[in-house]
Amino acid sequence: MAETGKTPLVGIIMGSTSDMPVMEKCTEELDHLGILYELIIASAHRSPAKVHEWASTAADRGIKVIIAAAGKAAHLGGVVAAYTPLPVIGVPMKTSDLGGMDSLLSMVQMPSGVPVACVAINGSKNAAIYAAQILGTGMPEYRERIFELKQQMAEA
Amino acid sequence: MAETGKTPLVGIIMGSTSDMPVMEKCTEELDHLGILYELIIASAHRSPAKVHEWASTAADRGIKVIIAAAGKAAHLGGVVAAYTPLPVIGVPMKTSDLGGMDSLLSMVQMPSGVPVACVAINGSKNAAIYAAQILGTGMPEYRERIFELKQQMAEA
Amino acid sequence: MAETGKTPLVGIIMGSTSDMPVMEKCTEELDHLGILYELIIASAHRSPAKVHEWASTAADRGIKVIIAAAGKAAHLGGVVAAYTPLPVIGVPMKTSDLGGMDSLLSMVQMPSGVPVACVAINGSKNAAIYAAQILGTGMPEYRERIFELKQQMAEA
Amino acid sequence: MAETGKTPLVGIIMGSTSDMPVMEKCTEELDHLGILYELIIASAHRSPAKVHEWASTAADRGIKVIIAAAGKAAHLGGVVAAYTPLPVIGVPMKTSDLGGMDSLLSMVQMPSGVPVACVAINGSKNAAIYAAQILGTGMPEYRERIFELKQQMAEA
Amino acid sequence: MAETGKTPLVGIIMGSTSDMPVMEKCTEELDHLGILYELIIASAHRSPAKVHEWASTAADRGIKVIIAAAGKAAHLGGVVAAYTPLPVIGVPMKTSDLGGMDSLLSMVQMPSGVPVACVAINGSKNAAIYAAQILGTGMPEYRERIFELKQQMAEA
Amino acid sequence: MAETGKTPLVGIIMGSTSDMPVMEKCTEELDHLGILYELIIASAHRSPAKVHEWASTAADRGIKVIIAAAGKAAHLGGVVAAYTPLPVIGVPMKTSDLGGMDSLLSMVQMPSGVPVACVAINGSKNAAIYAAQILGTGMPEYRERIFELKQQMAEA
Amino acid sequence: MAETGKTPLVGIIMGSTSDMPVMEKCTEELDHLGILYELIIASAHRSPAKVHEWASTAADRGIKVIIAAAGKAAHLGGVVAAYTPLPVIGVPMKTSDLGGMDSLLSMVQMPSGVPVACVAINGSKNAAIYAAQILGTGMPEYRERIFELKQQMAEA
Amino acid sequence: MAETGKTPLVGIIMGSTSDMPVMEKCTEELDHLGILYELIIASAHRSPAKVHEWASTAADRGIKVIIAAAGKAAHLGGVVAAYTPLPVIGVPMKTSDLGGMDSLLSMVQMPSGVPVACVAINGSKNAAIYAAQILGTGMPEYRERIFELKQQMAEA
Repeated sequence: MAETGKTPLVGIIMGSTSDMPVMEKCTEELDHLGILYELIIASAHRSPAKVHEWASTAADRGIKVIIAAAGKAAHLGGVVAAYTPLPVIGVPMKTSDLGGMDSLLSMVQMPSGVPVACVAINGSKNAAIYAAQILGTGMPEYRERIFELKQQMAEA
Repeated sequence: MAETGKTPLVGIIMGSTSDMPVMEKCTEELDHLGILYELIIASAHRSPAKVHEWASTAADRGIKVIIAAAGKAAHLGGVVAAYTPLPVIGVPMKTSDLGGMDSLLSMVQMPSGVPVACVAINGSKNAAIYAAQILGTGMPEYRERIFELKQQMAEA
Repeated sequence: MAETGKTPLVGIIMGSTSDMPVMEKCTEELDHLGILYELIIASAHRSPAKVHEWASTAADRGIKVIIAAAGKAAHLGGVVAAYTPLPVIGVPMKTSDLGGMDSLLSMVQMPSGVPVACVAINGSKNAAIYAAQILGTGMPEYRERIFELKQQMAEA
Repeated sequence: MAETGKTPLVGIIMGSTSDMPVMEKCTEELDHLGILYELIIASAHRSPAKVHEWASTAADRGIKVIIAAAGKAAHLGGVVAAYTPLPVIGVPMKTSDLGGMDSLLSMVQMPSGVPVACVAINGSKNAAIYAAQILGTGMPEYRERIFELKQQMAEA
Repeated sequence: MAETGKTPLVGIIMGSTSDMPVMEKCTEELDHLGILYELIIASAHRSPAKVHEWASTAADRGIKVIIAAAGKAAHLGGVVAAYTPLPVIGVPMKTSDLGGMDSLLSMVQMPSGVPVACVAINGSKNAAIYAAQILGTGMPEYRERIFELKQQMAEA
Repeated sequence: MAETGKTPLVGIIMGSTSDMPVMEKCTEELDHLGILYELIIASAHRSPAKVHEWASTAADRGIKVIIAAAGKAAHLGGVVAAYTPLPVIGVPMKTSDLGGMDSLLSMVQMPSGVPVACVAINGSKNAAIYAAQILGTGMPEYRERIFELKQQMAEA
Repeated sequence: MAETGKTPLVGIIMGSTSDMPVMEKCTEELDHLGILYELIIASAHRSPAKVHEWASTAADRGIKVIIAAAGKAAHLGGVVAAYTPLPVIGVPMKTSDLGGMDSLLSMVQMPSGVPVACVAINGSKNAAIYAAQILGTGMPEYRERIFELKQQMAEA
Repeated sequence: MAETGKTPLVGIIMGSTSDMPVMEKCTEELDHLGILYELIIASAHRSPAKVHEWASTAADRGIKVIIAAAGKAAHLGGVVAAYTPLPVIGVPMKTSDLGGMDSLLSMVQMPSGVPVACVAINGSKNAAIYAAQILGTGMPEYRERIFELKQQMAEA
């Protein structure tokens, strides 16, 4: 990890390619904040081994924060959180029938011991900002970028 | 599997010991129906390896139906279903804040490819009956017991 | 029942022709899994005698699993379950006003004694897979197909 | 039917004996309004033949209005309505998990062609009053009693 | 009232002209059933005196059943019911934000003493059928028409 | 109105005596703020004439703000608002089945033209404070009291 | 404040420019009622200092009523109310996922001590009318306009 | 910051003393994890200046993560997040009327630009664990403790 800037710090996982359009606001914001990320599409239910493998090794690959996006019975965040000590940010996807209430409750109501911290339904941009805030607790340059972002918003 | 009657046919898994009082109606009904079961308490989030191991080997142990009970962000059914070809019956636990709506949506809204079929919130007795109905599709004696149960109910 | 492959094993019932477009994903998946089915459109409320007749005789016709799809005050699954010892899989239809929450609660919250196990709102493909899982408990070839399906999904 | 006053005009059906305490406010109000009723406890799911028989013959027995009380996946009103031309008043029972929202939606969201008209969750007294209002459309003495009831309430 | 057939028996009231497209299914069904009706558009809140006048005199005009359609905080049914001894059938209108859950709860959850019996959200056709069922309790020709309707549905 | 201080400025109306315990926090706060009020218990449905009379004459009696508390299908606020030009503050009562969601939606979702502005479920103390804020727009002494209240809260 | 008519009496604040189309019905109604207003777009979260400044000084600028419109986790009304003794009318914005239920609960469920009184979801026109009703408690000309408005509605 | 261990790293803020019993599971877990914290009780609405001051200076005091607990229209997390670049973990408090759905939506549905990441309703213990996970991204000893915690849970 000599060249820190070139190691992805954020791991993004989403349950389906259909989540990608919403999650583009996340990757755009990470790009904007200058944060490297890796991205994988893997379902907690259809490809559990892939999720297991990815989540279990994320910390060792240098990932520091995970963003998990899923819809309906959105287990992805919880399943990832079960296999990693890293903080997991959940992005509940809007659903066509229940508006995303199902995704939200499936993600946020995690039982004691294994948290997933959720942002808003389809709140993919905020997931990126929150990842930066987390990184900023150990890396001052990211806190700096949040400061700038806040100033830009205040002036907008 | 020479002595079929002695091999558990139903595997019950629940996320927490606190689910046991509700699930006793399930085990009582299975006893009443003469169905052998094994029972494990394991959390999809706190002890994922245990769940993985148990679910992956259930079919080989002779289990034919799985009953998974969990509350809140109730991923247990989906996680088990990801690792087994067996039918999984979900029992969403009532919760003290949202009444079990969180458990229900977390269980029933499974994405395409990996179903969990849910009974009612706290519907643990019905999970046992449904397991017997499933077993009855291949083993006439269980269908017979469902017939008797239906007759008893009609006469009650 | 000498020619097993030619007897329908799954009975599909839906409340209205308007449910057919959603349920096509169910019949396609059953075709894909090589499972014969029969299909009827009958309302629990508008044509109760037809439902009664169909449900009461399903087991004798060789049907092993029933899939019932209905929307709004979706009683169809429960009404069928009242008249048959077979396992009934409920498919709650999405509704234009409440998103299918009405259909879901009307199906899943069955009282003690007569379960209907529900898949997701509009989860018609999963109903087919779950039917195969049920059949697989007694007929190894269907379990085999579920294994293959799971492998295909993991590799997709 | 020579002695009209002695023939029950209202048929009350409820799904379970556990509904009786709530429904006592209904029978008390019918007594208070001087309306004869018959009462049966029968489940749409556990004793469907009994419900079918009772509902199909209600009109011929002289019943003019039916009050159906049920909870959870409350199909009773709809099942009765399927078998009788009489108006059915639904009383959705409060439930311990979802507060009765499940009962309400299961009763009120009836599909086109077969209405059940619902009063409030646990609104058993109002079901009695509504039955009197219905009877009052053909029998002036009941409309008169509603007038008196309204005056008493206005003065209370 | 010498020429009974020419006196409207059903009074329809709706809160806004925007409810008319939905309520056309009600008037069409009443036409189909051969039931005369009068129709008024009046808001419980914007034109309370008009509602008061109409409701208070409905019974004296020969109206026997009232159908009240309203959306959002749908007070119309309750306000009408306060001023008439006639049975009031509520039709909760679908709303663009909450799907009609607001209309439904505002109509169905009437407090003790003054019922409004609700059909489904946008259930305008069923309101017509229910009105016929109510009329049928005193006028055999309408019960006859419900019988026919049921037979047509069963054969459809 | 020579002795302004002695004329009630706030009119409190509630649908039932059962609302009184909750509303005592309202009257206590009005006492604390030194605001005279009159209080009436009258149901929009059981005693509509009383509500009509009280609401229609409130402005002429010197009342400047109305607080209406009601539960379930809580029409009281809307009915009062229909008959007065005064601002009406709605207090949705908590209900035993739906937690007050029914009361809230029945009050707050008023259609265009006739607003009721709602405080929280059971928010009776806040209704008193809001009444003071409204009075404070024309009477500086009440704005002064709100200032003091805010300071006390900030220091608490 | 010599020329009273020229000082804005109502302050409108909204969280985002995307709220403007809905809020135009508010400004149109204020224009129609002849009430001067000032309008600001400022987010409680992105530009908190701007909101703080605007809210803290509103009363001193002559503003008498504040209308705050916001969506999702709609804190704007509460944040403004924290900094001003003026009455704050909340307008919860409809949201694309939860229909505005999130906005409504975030606005109306204010804790004890600091009320925000809410109108309906997207009820921007009613917010204007309510502002006029509040102003009318101290300024007879505005009560007069509400009288006229009510008459126009009754005649419409 | 020479003696890192002695500077609080987590700031806990809650809206009311009534939140303390629930939040004790948070402070106990932080103690258990060996994480120093400071704790303040301050309302976003009743004592906004105190919240503003505390939040604006938290980062400079050495705080790295904020845990905000509030109920009903739970603005506290969002208000704090508006004034700090630090990550804010929201803990929605269970409420007696809506079960905490109001608190959850008020916290989690934050608009674009200013995230609050929520744990479950009353999920105070998980907030502590999540704070440790965040700290662990920059301070290996905390990640180590999460590893240990996960192992203990797996063995329990």
